[in-house]
Amino acid sequence: MKRKLRSKLGRSTTDKIFVRGYDLTEDLLGKVSLGDVAFLELMGRLPSPPESIMFNALVVTLVEHGLTPSAIAARLTYFGAPESLQGAVAAGLLGMGDRFGGSIEQAAKLLQEVPAGEDVRVAAQRIVESHRAAKSVIPGLGHPIHKPADPRTVRLFALAAENGLSGRHVELMEAVGSEATAAYGRALPVNATGAIAAIASDMGIPWNVCRGLAVMARAIGLVAHVQEEMGEPTAAEIWLRVDTEAQEEQG
Amino acid sequence: MKRKLRSKLGRSTTDKIFVRGYDLTEDLLGKVSLGDVAFLELMGRLPSPPESIMFNALVVTLVEHGLTPSAIAARLTYFGAPESLQGAVAAGLLGMGDRFGGSIEQAAKLLQEVPAGEDVRVAAQRIVESHRAAKSVIPGLGHPIHKPADPRTVRLFALAAENGLSGRHVELMEAVGSEATAAYGRALPVNATGAIAAIASDMGIPWNVCRGLAVMARAIGLVAHVQEEMGEPTAAEIWLRVDTEAQEEQG
Amino acid sequence: MKRKLRSKLGRSTTDKIFVRGYDLTEDLLGKVSLGDVAFLELMGRLPSPPESIMFNALVVTLVEHGLTPSAIAARLTYFGAPESLQGAVAAGLLGMGDRFGGSIEQAAKLLQEVPAGEDVRVAAQRIVESHRAAKSVIPGLGHPIHKPADPRTVRLFALAAENGLSGRHVELMEAVGSEATAAYGRALPVNATGAIAAIASDMGIPWNVCRGLAVMARAIGLVAHVQEEMGEPTAAEIWLRVDTEAQEEQG
Amino acid sequence: MKRKLRSKLGRSTTDKIFVRGYDLTEDLLGKVSLGDVAFLELMGRLPSPPESIMFNALVVTLVEHGLTPSAIAARLTYFGAPESLQGAVAAGLLGMGDRFGGSIEQAAKLLQEVPAGEDVRVAAQRIVESHRAAKSVIPGLGHPIHKPADPRTVRLFALAAENGLSGRHVELMEAVGSEATAAYGRALPVNATGAIAAIASDMGIPWNVCRGLAVMARAIGLVAHVQEEMGEPTAAEIWLRVDTEAQEEQG
Repeated sequence: MKRKLRSKLGRSTTDKIFVRGYDLTEDLLGKVSLGDVAFLELMGRLPSPPESIMFNALVVTLVEHGLTPSAIAARLTYFGAPESLQGAVAAGLLGMGDRFGGSIEQAAKLLQEVPAGEDVRVAAQRIVESHRAAKSVIPGLGHPIHKPADPRTVRLFALAAENGLSGRHVELMEAVGSEATAAYGRALPVNATGAIAAIASDMGIPWNVCRGLAVMARAIGLVAHVQEEMGEPTAAEIWLRVDTEAQEEQG
Repeated sequence: MKRKLRSKLGRSTTDKIFVRGYDLTEDLLGKVSLGDVAFLELMGRLPSPPESIMFNALVVTLVEHGLTPSAIAARLTYFGAPESLQGAVAAGLLGMGDRFGGSIEQAAKLLQEVPAGEDVRVAAQRIVESHRAAKSVIPGLGHPIHKPADPRTVRLFALAAENGLSGRHVELMEAVGSEATAAYGRALPVNATGAIAAIASDMGIPWNVCRGLAVMARAIGLVAHVQEEMGEPTAAEIWLRVDTEAQEEQG
Repeated sequence: MKRKLRSKLGRSTTDKIFVRGYDLTEDLLGKVSLGDVAFLELMGRLPSPPESIMFNALVVTLVEHGLTPSAIAARLTYFGAPESLQGAVAAGLLGMGDRFGGSIEQAAKLLQEVPAGEDVRVAAQRIVESHRAAKSVIPGLGHPIHKPADPRTVRLFALAAENGLSGRHVELMEAVGSEATAAYGRALPVNATGAIAAIASDMGIPWNVCRGLAVMARAIGLVAHVQEEMGEPTAAEIWLRVDTEAQEEQG
Repeated sequence: MKRKLRSKLGRSTTDKIFVRGYDLTEDLLGKVSLGDVAFLELMGRLPSPPESIMFNALVVTLVEHGLTPSAIAARLTYFGAPESLQGAVAAGLLGMGDRFGGSIEQAAKLLQEVPAGEDVRVAAQRIVESHRAAKSVIPGLGHPIHKPADPRTVRLFALAAENGLSGRHVELMEAVGSEATAAYGRALPVNATGAIAAIASDMGIPWNVCRGLAVMARAIGLVAHVQEEMGEPTAAEIWLRVDTEAQEEQG
């Protein structure tokens, strides 16, 4: 027997529109912010005030990072296809994969897979050991630019504590950072990715949707990059620099 | 001489990150919501409290519309490429073009191109006449399901009035609706697309970025659709129904 | 009554697969090349030998253009999402819009809309005049690098003549080029885009699918760029150059 | 010291265009088919005549599979964004991931990672055992519709033998199929995916670009689906069926 098609996310009648069971015009418009509706969409309920502050802070962190590969790809795409703002944003989002948005997912998976009863210090040592043995990078640690500490981590962890949302996963992530720093003999503090993964985990957001936090936030930033590209184009200049250098190499 | 590459949107130093000139950790995290940062990215300044309510309402309207073509495309794409949440969201966003997100852009363009000095009634008549003569659809009017009035329009226009953000463009859009209703002899009320276009225009959002409001909002909804698809898959069922019917046709 | 879902393109039974009515394993595999199947998919029949030579030449022209914006976007996307080769290719293809692939479409539309009975010279003059009056660029003419003539145009027009596929649309395109050169007082020869548009039109390919010739051909080139990026990465270097220059600007 | 930017794929001068070192107009146009240029782009040299037959057969197999999830996603996307054929094709390609195009990659990886000196039968048993132990699916085997044998496999393996391109990887793939059939006690013949992976491996195509064969081939098929959608639309009907069923479920 075939399964039924359905979605709990949205439905409409002639005079009503529902989002996750809430009446859009009665319950949401004018009352609830975009970030809170994002929380509602993912979690099936509206956030409490502390959850709202924290969730908005997590996604706000991910909106804008300047001329990153994603932003450059979006701008180059807009240059070739100015009829399609959505295509430029989509091209930029396609780079939010394993290396970028994916690292939040990987860190959250690591934290959420620690058994409930395991001692935090023991778990942290085990995680660091297994990554060292496999010579693989521990997600959520270190940063090429922000040293000694990632300013976002400091602020996000403080907000989590203030709002009563700092729990076992934040504790674990910090323990992984200090164990790794000891084991590798160099500073490996928790970066913004690790902080977001840990707090999201403490808020009950499943690891397999954590990459989605980066995707939804960056969509906003990429719309702004396309808007800026309309007025102050960079794509032709980027192409020129790349092409000039590459042609010289081949000459 | 070549142009310089630069972006006003974001930059970072070893211990600071700036978004549109604001210090991310000092000024934004924990203080400003996602929707307000979207406003900041597009407009270059934070919204006033009434602007915040209104802007959030505009984009919240666009987050979730159920199993639309965009959502179905995202779910089918996730089925084929479960490694890439970002690819599924991108596929869904690619359908936010001329027919969907584009209609906000077209309505806003229509309104923003009315000369400042022109009488609202005269402009509305001129717009209706020129579309009738060209047998083209007037963007922002009518709805196949929501009759007689789109409940979102009623609520959004009320919010605009309450917040002192209802101006000439809203007046114009309403005049276009009543002129069209008279000219075509059937109810052509302003739909959600037209309401968003008019209010965005009164808030100073340029028409050429209005499609981006739908893109950023729907990215959130599409992440939620992919999350739902992970737990309650629909893609294989949709494929089965389409394929079964198509194979019977060809039999 | 609802319309039926169906597609003439493909279907399968337990032991047969059909493409456009041809038995895939009996009629196509080992007998027909990729380019010929592309012709079959678009035109509903296999090409004659001259059509095969010509169609393959048109699409081969469009496969590889070096480090273009599309190729750079694909490489930057692969850098962020190495799990998704398809995402990197998709990001690159999204730039094949109005400015690139779209120019073939625009030129073909221009040519195919000339009434059958109109004198070629008269039509060419009319086209040049109307574009001059509207101060719009005539698609298919001129090239920033390849001067005085685009080497691809010379070769493609020669191939069309040799294969008996040079007709009224090629004649028209050449007439538009010489009229424009006369009217603007500077060399505006037919470029590769114009040559492809004209020959495709003489082969009966509808203008609204001409952009698709660029899309299908460039998908091949973009797979090759992603492959090269795997072994000889450029994305991090491109990012570094852009970011360094942009940060200096803001300092 | 920073690395140099360059690409071996393409470059141009004022009167010449080169693809992988070949003069486009002198060496390729009119002489070499699209499939052969795809081989050139990936392998850095033109194919021999048997390689040309075989490579074209591999990619021709992947062009068109009817109303698959990819094709449906492309058509739904075109419905929402008719201004962007490239966006619809990109949306469809985004579904060519781990489940579809990725299975060729996984099968090729499996085959190419078998040590050169290992006995084929021993390697096949080892592969089947390890997948059984991990309860994971062996890529390249079995098919829900095409039974007892996939007609494409039979034809592709025959073509490989005829053209002297059937080697150790084909032998391995067949051994994996017969070992799996014995171990699981049900028919698990090599499917088209496994056949393509094995032959591509014998032709020297690296496993990490094998997904690209599906991507480049399907781009052609998707352009054809968009063309068909222009004339015989299906998207609104698909949406209607999905939405009607989903709304009934929620009523």
